[in-house]
Amino acid sequence: MTKFEEFAQEWRPQIDATIHSELERVMPAQENADLNEMMAYGLFSGGKRVRPLLTLAVWASFGLEIQKEWLKLASAIEWVHAYSLVHDDLPAMDNDLLRRGKPSLHAKFGYANAILTGDALLTGAFEVISSVKAVPAETLLEVTRDLSQAAGAAGMVGGQYHDMENHEDLDIDQSWLFQAIYEPKTAALITYSLTAAGRLLNMNRTDFQLLKQWGENFGLAFQVADDIDDYAQDEEENVKSLPQLVGMDKAVEVRDELFSRVKESLQALAERNQDFNPEYLAGFLAKLEQ
Amino acid sequence: MTKFEEFAQEWRPQIDATIHSELERVMPAQENADLNEMMAYGLFSGGKRVRPLLTLAVWASFGLEIQKEWLKLASAIEWVHAYSLVHDDLPAMDNDLLRRGKPSLHAKFGYANAILTGDALLTGAFEVISSVKAVPAETLLEVTRDLSQAAGAAGMVGGQYHDMENHEDLDIDQSWLFQAIYEPKTAALITYSLTAAGRLLNMNRTDFQLLKQWGENFGLAFQVADDIDDYAQDEEENVKSLPQLVGMDKAVEVRDELFSRVKESLQALAERNQDFNPEYLAGFLAKLEQ
Repeated sequence: MTKFEEFAQEWRPQIDATIHSELERVMPAQENADLNEMMAYGLFSGGKRVRPLLTLAVWASFGLEIQKEWLKLASAIEWVHAYSLVHDDLPAMDNDLLRRGKPSLHAKFGYANAILTGDALLTGAFEVISSVKAVPAETLLEVTRDLSQAAGAAGMVGGQYHDMENHEDLDIDQSWLFQAIYEPKTAALITYSLTAAGRLLNMNRTDFQLLKQWGENFGLAFQVADDIDDYAQDEEENVKSLPQLVGMDKAVEVRDELFSRVKESLQALAERNQDFNPEYLAGFLAKLEQ
Repeated sequence: MTKFEEFAQEWRPQIDATIHSELERVMPAQENADLNEMMAYGLFSGGKRVRPLLTLAVWASFGLEIQKEWLKLASAIEWVHAYSLVHDDLPAMDNDLLRRGKPSLHAKFGYANAILTGDALLTGAFEVISSVKAVPAETLLEVTRDLSQAAGAAGMVGGQYHDMENHEDLDIDQSWLFQAIYEPKTAALITYSLTAAGRLLNMNRTDFQLLKQWGENFGLAFQVADDIDDYAQDEEENVKSLPQLVGMDKAVEVRDELFSRVKESLQALAERNQDFNPEYLAGFLAKLEQ
């Protein structure tokens, strides 16, 4: 078993349990069973919990014992991730009827309910974070700001806006694709997973920047690796992902270059911090390289 | 000129200026002109700014000089209000093509863009609040929690969920209408306008509760008054608002009873606080009573 799988097997059930208990707090089934069910459908749609696992991995890398309240902070990311999938799947957006082999939320519960459920999940993320205990208010406020920036108009919403344009026949290049879509839509929330952990650690500026860099490059690599896997499907749907734009060989080169950068940031972090164990984050990259 | 109009004339331009400058910070036109334009369209759709004016009025009632950063806190409410109008107007929801005599956001910019703009406005509200300076982080975090509860699944989203049911032929009564729709959909955000001001004042528990009560009853009165005005239209659209449910005479009675309760909370607040000037909030009620 790889380091990543070991870590994921230990923490994924606890992330799921935290999401479940926070959902029951935010929207108790006995108050509105339908909304509770739909939110649960969005939150438990078979995702691998990569983002909260990354947050936990940073804390583990510094040898910290992960506390119950920290799990809430980490799991809030999944609410935002789930909301974005629900809204992106809508008929007016990507019009996807399936999500990981199951009916997408609007396919199962209807259009209006999917809009509302997405709204509830997005708002719920902020309720989860602002209810975390045993973490200084200043830190939670910084995390709130970081998350709203990663998710908002200059982040995920902006990325999805440009991704919609990308379904049209735009004349685009790699630099536009990275800046307008990959960074805001995918890398921003992954980067947030890292910085949310860093905010709690009161890291010095240089280490925080290295952690952020790791997240940005890992996020981009994550997206490019996904593009390479989805090549045939994107070709069919006339989506211009990186391989369509620059060819498969060049896309693999770009991905490998990103992998190298991810490794460099990790090495720099390890060299500067004797108490930092790079094996955890290295495990995430190894998983992606498989 | 009434006290309300005087206050509104003084502060509305400053609320608008604050919304404008925060929008340029959150989503600069030079970064994404389209998204900036659409968000501006949602934020400047001719609303009267009742909610942020309420927040400012509480501060003014206690004789406080309203600071620039406080204006940001107060104006964030409008981002949430604007998002809710944009999403409520969508074809899958209320399917409204007009909003205050102008095309609704989706009628002007398309379905996908209206979903995205709503998402950006909702997320932006949290970015505005978490970027406020010169207010303690603990207070901003409390306000964030209050807002996420007022806006989320147990608040506005839940209210809109039940309002959608209300378009179907449900057998409902007044108590259900108030609990399932009026309180979460309308009164919750108006109540938040009051408590957001109260959080900053570090009020004692009793006064805070009185302020909250004022907001809850004012919010309900606001909705019932609106129903009475919209009677003919609701009749046509087969929406069961209070007058449809209990008859116009009884609806007017309910409204007047709410007006009385609003006055009682205000009087109690004034009696307990010598430095509290009830004229400001009384002006909001007088406006509603006209």
